[in-house]
Amino acid sequence: MSYEQMEALGRRGRAASRALAKTPGRIRDAALLAMADALAARREAIKAANALDLADADARGVTGAMRDRLKLDDARIDAMIAGLREVVALPDPVGEVLGERVRPNGLRVAQMRMPLGVIGIIYEARPNVTVDAAALCIKSGNVAFLRGGSEAKHSNALLIEILRAALEGVGLPGDALMSLPSTDRAWIEALLQAEPWIDVIIPRGGESLIRFVTARSRIPVIKHYKGVCHIFIDATADWDKAIEICHNAKVQRPGVCNAMETLLIHEAIAPELLPMIAERLSADGVELRGCPAAREILPSMAEATEEDYHAEYLDLILAVRIVADLDEAMDHIATYGSDHTESILSEDYSNVQRFLEEVRSAVVMANASTRFSDGGQMGLGAEIGISTTRLHAYGPMGLEDLTCKKYIVKGTGQTRG
Amino acid sequence: MSYEQMEALGRRGRAASRALAKTPGRIRDAALLAMADALAARREAIKAANALDLADADARGVTGAMRDRLKLDDARIDAMIAGLREVVALPDPVGEVLGERVRPNGLRVAQMRMPLGVIGIIYEARPNVTVDAAALCIKSGNVAFLRGGSEAKHSNALLIEILRAALEGVGLPGDALMSLPSTDRAWIEALLQAEPWIDVIIPRGGESLIRFVTARSRIPVIKHYKGVCHIFIDATADWDKAIEICHNAKVQRPGVCNAMETLLIHEAIAPELLPMIAERLSADGVELRGCPAAREILPSMAEATEEDYHAEYLDLILAVRIVADLDEAMDHIATYGSDHTESILSEDYSNVQRFLEEVRSAVVMANASTRFSDGGQMGLGAEIGISTTRLHAYGPMGLEDLTCKKYIVKGTGQTRG
Repeated sequence: MSYEQMEALGRRGRAASRALAKTPGRIRDAALLAMADALAARREAIKAANALDLADADARGVTGAMRDRLKLDDARIDAMIAGLREVVALPDPVGEVLGERVRPNGLRVAQMRMPLGVIGIIYEARPNVTVDAAALCIKSGNVAFLRGGSEAKHSNALLIEILRAALEGVGLPGDALMSLPSTDRAWIEALLQAEPWIDVIIPRGGESLIRFVTARSRIPVIKHYKGVCHIFIDATADWDKAIEICHNAKVQRPGVCNAMETLLIHEAIAPELLPMIAERLSADGVELRGCPAAREILPSMAEATEEDYHAEYLDLILAVRIVADLDEAMDHIATYGSDHTESILSEDYSNVQRFLEEVRSAVVMANASTRFSDGGQMGLGAEIGISTTRLHAYGPMGLEDLTCKKYIVKGTGQTRG
Repeated sequence: MSYEQMEALGRRGRAASRALAKTPGRIRDAALLAMADALAARREAIKAANALDLADADARGVTGAMRDRLKLDDARIDAMIAGLREVVALPDPVGEVLGERVRPNGLRVAQMRMPLGVIGIIYEARPNVTVDAAALCIKSGNVAFLRGGSEAKHSNALLIEILRAALEGVGLPGDALMSLPSTDRAWIEALLQAEPWIDVIIPRGGESLIRFVTARSRIPVIKHYKGVCHIFIDATADWDKAIEICHNAKVQRPGVCNAMETLLIHEAIAPELLPMIAERLSADGVELRGCPAAREILPSMAEATEEDYHAEYLDLILAVRIVADLDEAMDHIATYGSDHTESILSEDYSNVQRFLEEVRSAVVMANASTRFSDGGQMGLGAEIGISTTRLHAYGPMGLEDLTCKKYIVKGTGQTRG
């Protein structure tokens, strides 16, 4: 490959983005519905292409969760189709006008939402991301520039062919959905240097992929590295709720970024409450690793190391630390947290308010499970990812986060004195 | 220098940012007022330090605008002091809660504005940027991490010493204002790699500085490279207004990024209107460079090349192109523009609306001079810069653009099913 080839692709994407940006919402919605119909019509071909990827995976000895992520069965194809229809039902963010104000000289100044332009999405094994990402980008008037993983290359190539045909079927440019011609790493590097043609890069995948992308990109990257989510149980917490919330945050789906990884518990209640929580979690196979004070209460616990406090286990393991007060809890979060999601369980008004104001993570909760840190659960509709970057978007990213706000200024002949 | 030294500075800045983020607005305002008083009290010392920079500049043979930018006389010191007091009067953006909504399970989801954290500002000769940038960052609860130009090193060192003492005088950490220990380029490179400690980089200066910073930064950069601003005079424009607006946009202050650089004019009115505009501009010494059609009307004009259409002259030069219609004007802007500011002069409702909706520049105007593309003029208060990056901020950046919005979620014991 050469950078000239990347540039040629970039120009095509940029041209399509101009066409797409001025397309009314009903045409973008029609494209999504046509995509849904086309996926349904080509279901057998999709499964056949996917079978090639699965055979490659088998030949490489891939098993378990890794192989499962690759798979497109009828249920997953149905979920992709349903996802497209759900995105159609979301409000169109493009064109919304905000905050119009009149200046003393009569100029009217407002902001208008517009698509970001071309969104580069770099992801790994799951081929369903191809459809989800395309849906959110097209809905918000953006060109999606996709680079899926080599593991899913047959599935992704067919899905993109189907989606591009659907776009053209409603009169939109097929180039509203671009992809790299090869899954070689050299092409990713070229994409990450294509600053004039790509407006933002959203990597989705493991921490090593995200660090690779961030280190090499000249284009702004919106990302989160990991989710080391904390729950702090304050001295005044409701014990029954605390036990249920801790169980939910750790056990309901331990392999995701909004699961609790470290429990902080106030020293005044730890001697009685910690054994009750440990009992509830142990019944589901959770391993606890505690600070020295926690091990005095539950001596069977392994000792937590510095590494444990930094760890995103994504597994049925929980670090536990006893703290003297709210400040010590917030210090721990500031030191070891990943700016993802933290929750305080407390009935103390001032402590809840201080936690919500002072903790600088993307999602800060009171008396709720960290598992609610999710675009769907928080009412944003579908989500394209989660940002802990603090620039542009912070927390779950919905359709609005795929837009920017330009200023519009309406005058009647004003000049500057 | 070593990266460990950078890391030590970074840690100090991050620690100060935690303290600053929970400081009430009245203390941040008190710090700005103390800074203003301290600058007034140390006026003679500031001028003496500045004299050393000016002597260095003279020794290097620096003259004209370059030397003028360095200079701190009484008027400029007064302006810095007045600027601090004006920022105090702006509303505090920190803590504002937006868009609270209740989910079906009773969770209350909202967003709360918080400081970005630590803001790296890389700038060139003007020492007054030291004070302006510090004021906006501290007001919005952010640590300012400054790297001024070597030309102004004596002035900047003293200003920073004065401002840090003022911070400490009101009980805030002096480290809320950080600076690099040397103006060596190696230190800039270290700063641009200090991803864990700096949240955003805002470069202010010439295009080459900004390209250097963007190419090397691992931290998100908010920037604009240049302002190639267009005015399009539509067939239905009011001629008197058009002549005045063109004159204002080109002549009132030609050396700034929101001055007009290219005039697009509808072919239906060009034969009569262009000579009138040319006459008004020529009286102030503006040189016109035109397309072939424009030169048929005014044969004395030089021919505009491709380079002219890309040029940010920052001078009394104007490229002129005659276009067939609105679409050709918007195509020209999309091809040659810099996403900064464009204005349509038109009395045609549909054309104005299409221009405002379809042009994707940061500031899109109708019937007003491009010179209004400025935070102060647009009602944002003081401005820290202008962004054409389309991520996070787009257009003039005020205090709100130095904040991000975290999600806050208030529950009563909810768990996810």
